[in-house]
Amino acid sequence: MSIDEKKLFDRIRSINPKTILLRGPEGYLNLIQRIASKIEGQFNIPTIISADECYGSCDTIENDALILGAEIVLHVGHSIRTDNFGKRTIMIDVTDDISFSRIIKKSIPIIKKYKRLGLCTISQYLNALQPSKKLFEEYGFDVIIGQGQGYLRDGQIFGCRFNTVFSIKGRIDAIIFLGQSRFHALGASLSTSLPTFMLDPYSNTFENMQNETEKWYKRAILQIYKAIDAKKFGVLIGLKEGQMNINTALRIRERLINNGKNAQLFSIREISSNRLDMLSQFDAFIQTACPRISIDQRSFKKPVLSTLQTEALFGIWDGLDPKSVLEKETWF
Amino acid sequence: MSIDEKKLFDRIRSINPKTILLRGPEGYLNLIQRIASKIEGQFNIPTIISADECYGSCDTIENDALILGAEIVLHVGHSIRTDNFGKRTIMIDVTDDISFSRIIKKSIPIIKKYKRLGLCTISQYLNALQPSKKLFEEYGFDVIIGQGQGYLRDGQIFGCRFNTVFSIKGRIDAIIFLGQSRFHALGASLSTSLPTFMLDPYSNTFENMQNETEKWYKRAILQIYKAIDAKKFGVLIGLKEGQMNINTALRIRERLINNGKNAQLFSIREISSNRLDMLSQFDAFIQTACPRISIDQRSFKKPVLSTLQTEALFGIWDGLDPKSVLEKETWF
Repeated sequence: MSIDEKKLFDRIRSINPKTILLRGPEGYLNLIQRIASKIEGQFNIPTIISADECYGSCDTIENDALILGAEIVLHVGHSIRTDNFGKRTIMIDVTDDISFSRIIKKSIPIIKKYKRLGLCTISQYLNALQPSKKLFEEYGFDVIIGQGQGYLRDGQIFGCRFNTVFSIKGRIDAIIFLGQSRFHALGASLSTSLPTFMLDPYSNTFENMQNETEKWYKRAILQIYKAIDAKKFGVLIGLKEGQMNINTALRIRERLINNGKNAQLFSIREISSNRLDMLSQFDAFIQTACPRISIDQRSFKKPVLSTLQTEALFGIWDGLDPKSVLEKETWF
Repeated sequence: MSIDEKKLFDRIRSINPKTILLRGPEGYLNLIQRIASKIEGQFNIPTIISADECYGSCDTIENDALILGAEIVLHVGHSIRTDNFGKRTIMIDVTDDISFSRIIKKSIPIIKKYKRLGLCTISQYLNALQPSKKLFEEYGFDVIIGQGQGYLRDGQIFGCRFNTVFSIKGRIDAIIFLGQSRFHALGASLSTSLPTFMLDPYSNTFENMQNETEKWYKRAILQIYKAIDAKKFGVLIGLKEGQMNINTALRIRERLINNGKNAQLFSIREISSNRLDMLSQFDAFIQTACPRISIDQRSFKKPVLSTLQTEALFGIWDGLDPKSVLEKETWF
């Protein structure tokens, strides 16, 4: 795993900051500490590393930088189509140059029944897309890499945005996800309903996501039905910078009240089972922060619906079938 | 438990907000929900309740109010000497009118060996100070209620500020803490080294805090000695609004580096064992957020020193004895 140090140091030199804040997912904490040490050695300024949970590129900390007086936040490993974000955030790409050739070759006997493949991955393996496409083509497949859209680069998916596979789903028979993130592979599968294979170059294994996709989908639907007769709803507004959707929350609150339900808005930074357990009088929760919080396997005692699931719930109340709830290009 | 609703509603009417944010410690969540419902009924506006952890009057959420567009934050149950705080926060007193007469009478046989008493309590029992003083005086005691200072009202203590008992400790033989918060009673005891009794009117029991005080004090000292040979220090800057002490953190970092130690700054919102476990290469942590985090019984695997303990550590490195580390009017 590596970053473009020269580009970063040139950027820092041009801004000449007094303090730098660094930020990234837990898996990159060691890398981030190494970058921080190098910056301190090079520029003789203190660095501050954010020790809070980091969900993704939605989880920037511009406000923390403001109150800490840090002129720059380096947001490591969640690259998007732009290098800069907000006033202080610089997105730092982390690149992992591991080869996918071996696992691709190993997967061919199973994958060969599909003719047309869609390739996707997450930011650190974006460099692997073109060589992998070429290799699959040598084996006779038609391969498409979906065009970038919004924050997404070509072939890139987020945990909540799948435009690059959704937009090509009519032209492919299966999705190949490059990487070792089941979270993302399941997202691609759920959002397209296409056969999806995760190719993990580290364990040299590949996995058909179908069984787990069905399990996750059923659970997502079950949660909706569990909330059907709820009377008291807690509607959660996330406080993370890219997750704050108060207008959605206000709209949902109004709709609940119009349906004769009781609804109370809550603001919350990290949505956890612990925090929700305290709100014991509520029958169900709707969270407008991050769709994954509702879709992933979490140990909530009450239903905690995402915005998409809530729309499906409203549909059921109106007599509609909640089919294909998650088959969407984004989960907002 | 009650609040002054008329005063609150008059205030709201004068500001005419579109949204109100409410906030308080977990024990008051039911009360806060009742207040929120009443406000929604009275003013026909949505209310938002903060579901995040709330430590005290240091844990205001002016910035949350700003991003949520709430013109008012009602901060419930952590009253200080002023009604307003920052631009949007209104401190709402919660008053508990339970009588302490019964538990005072019960405690007399044990307490009578002390002639001069200092009375203290937390915000919800402030009304009980004068009647309790009078009752103790009827039993022949000399009773002093320490004068308010800074944010503290007469006789009030916080978890980290004990000026009202520290300032009278030369004139009293024992401290009487009114209430059922061992956390606060231990603070009064540790900060003065005086015999301290907690009088709990609900369980109708009183407790001599001496044994536990000694246990807590020894643990606080032990943590300092555990950090003596640490090489790699993580220095934590709290992100809560009244806990952000970056200058203290920068000063400590410099001192550590001058002592030949390795020091990395971290920013963090909630300091928990889980988050610190991730930073496994560090031998010890220093946190500049809230002294109680270090003093209270928590399940940290590595030493996590408060600012006071860190000063004592620096003293030990300079050859001084870390005596009376916690015998201070505030723990900053």
